[in-house]
Amino acid sequence: MIQTIILKKRPVGKPTLSDFEFVNEDKDLNIQKGEILLEATYISVDPYLRGRMNDAKSYVPPFELGKPITSGVVAKVMASKNDKFKEGDYVSGMMDWKTQQVSKGEGLLNINKDLAPLSAYLGILGMTGLTAYLGLNEIGKPKAGETLLISGAAGAVGSVVGQIGKILGLYVVGIAGTDEKVAMLTSEFGFDHAINYNTTDDMRAAIRTACPDGVDVYFDNVGGPISDAVLYNINKYARMIICGAISVYNNTEMPKSISVQPFLIKNSALMQGFIVSNYAEKFPEAMKNLSTWLAEGKLNYTETVVNGFENTPQAFLDLFEGKNKGKMIVKV
Amino acid sequence: MIQTIILKKRPVGKPTLSDFEFVNEDKDLNIQKGEILLEATYISVDPYLRGRMNDAKSYVPPFELGKPITSGVVAKVMASKNDKFKEGDYVSGMMDWKTQQVSKGEGLLNINKDLAPLSAYLGILGMTGLTAYLGLNEIGKPKAGETLLISGAAGAVGSVVGQIGKILGLYVVGIAGTDEKVAMLTSEFGFDHAINYNTTDDMRAAIRTACPDGVDVYFDNVGGPISDAVLYNINKYARMIICGAISVYNNTEMPKSISVQPFLIKNSALMQGFIVSNYAEKFPEAMKNLSTWLAEGKLNYTETVVNGFENTPQAFLDLFEGKNKGKMIVKV
Repeated sequence: MIQTIILKKRPVGKPTLSDFEFVNEDKDLNIQKGEILLEATYISVDPYLRGRMNDAKSYVPPFELGKPITSGVVAKVMASKNDKFKEGDYVSGMMDWKTQQVSKGEGLLNINKDLAPLSAYLGILGMTGLTAYLGLNEIGKPKAGETLLISGAAGAVGSVVGQIGKILGLYVVGIAGTDEKVAMLTSEFGFDHAINYNTTDDMRAAIRTACPDGVDVYFDNVGGPISDAVLYNINKYARMIICGAISVYNNTEMPKSISVQPFLIKNSALMQGFIVSNYAEKFPEAMKNLSTWLAEGKLNYTETVVNGFENTPQAFLDLFEGKNKGKMIVKV
Repeated sequence: MIQTIILKKRPVGKPTLSDFEFVNEDKDLNIQKGEILLEATYISVDPYLRGRMNDAKSYVPPFELGKPITSGVVAKVMASKNDKFKEGDYVSGMMDWKTQQVSKGEGLLNINKDLAPLSAYLGILGMTGLTAYLGLNEIGKPKAGETLLISGAAGAVGSVVGQIGKILGLYVVGIAGTDEKVAMLTSEFGFDHAINYNTTDDMRAAIRTACPDGVDVYFDNVGGPISDAVLYNINKYARMIICGAISVYNNTEMPKSISVQPFLIKNSALMQGFIVSNYAEKFPEAMKNLSTWLAEGKLNYTETVVNGFENTPQAFLDLFEGKNKGKMIVKV
């Protein structure tokens, strides 16, 4: 039996399980010349998918109602009539949320299960690691000795950003939402300091204390009031990488914040939206460094693995409750 | 008699005449070796001076209470004991708001009164022109055929930005606050289109109509609701030059706007604060192009000249009422 998860209706505000529907088909898939048969092994659930559930112009087209959700997936090649892939290979790439599917192999990468666990290819050696590496370097342009502040620091991208920051010689401070996450940032990921925004009344003052030399690079995964507090602490020529805005993804009205423009002028500072797919020509360089650092034991990563294809929608919803530590992945 | 305008108290919100004080001294100024005696000819009044009247960290130190205001001034050399300047020369640079003053000549430039009217050195061949040229080129990185939108377009900087945009082959749209200014933008400065924000209910829709291909470069002199409306109309990879925020300079509380972060992410867009003094190494290139275009008749400029040193504070206040067209200058 082949199971598929489709978008049943477009969420209004926070998504719910009723926005998704499971479709079961009792059939065998056949492949034609050039095609491969894939069985999903791991599925990535990511906050950015929420944006694709709206019917709005964005950097990727919206999901269609009644069609499968797609995201990063690691799959096993069960049968192949394509010279680039052979039975038993593992591949990663954008695929449908289906237990089995047929593909022509376009956009899929062969991955090496001996170099790293398969799930790593959805995280530190996948879009997550590339986002962290390229966002930090291409927009942040960090220099050793500078201060790097990261919001959503215990998330999949944030925890990698901080570790790369330490490798590059930066002073690294993270913001997260539980004491457990805050402890993990300093103990497991080598951050110099971390702040729990849920137990801090005055974030503006807390950031000032944690970043005594001010903030040179801000890697922003959340937006909203946390990012407002950061603005008061930026240095001249600060660079702010706007990578995510999870605090506002579920808002139905356009949220208000303090005006950023006066802060940008006063500090000759830069804010830039970052989408990893714009930097494809830099992927080889980034993968080379990430896999070297991983092999050298310089990069830790944390996954939250949820078991069972049927739990994929709930795993996605849990992202907005901060239930994940590091990359959220479903093991099919 | 030497007259001086000092900052008597720090404005709260909108400045008033009572924030300034005139001090008269009945004495003769003597110069020592290396010094020059200067008589002010033209004084520049600029919105950014408002920021320096606050006691707050910014890119230039605040004015001191009881001390003279300083801004761009063109002055005549009345006497010189400095080899670089001779009696009868004209100079421009940052000087006190005084009818006469002694200087060592540091930071002053000899200017050529035959190349352009003296007041032009406070405008199109001064910081105004440099700001327009370098902000547009260094942050905006415009490409021929793109759409350039300018807020505060009838102001000193904005009107030059638009003309440079036309020289560089852009489609140029301006936003201003009166029908007279809007007419001037298209008739005198060659803008393709202009919008009167005071008579437009739906700026978001008006910008969409005026910029059918979307906004690639936004030169922002105002901030506030106008800039919020622009965000809905930016293209992928848009560049937003944050040059001024006159709409908020007089606010006593930090103003709120819509959150920019989701727009920056969705469009991989950039916002960067621009301060002309950070780009000093590019001044010669900019001056060369500006003076060439001026000589070729490709650049028009408008001045609002107020007569009388005693009217300098009022001229400054009038900036916030939009009473100037182009560069606001006081003729001493």
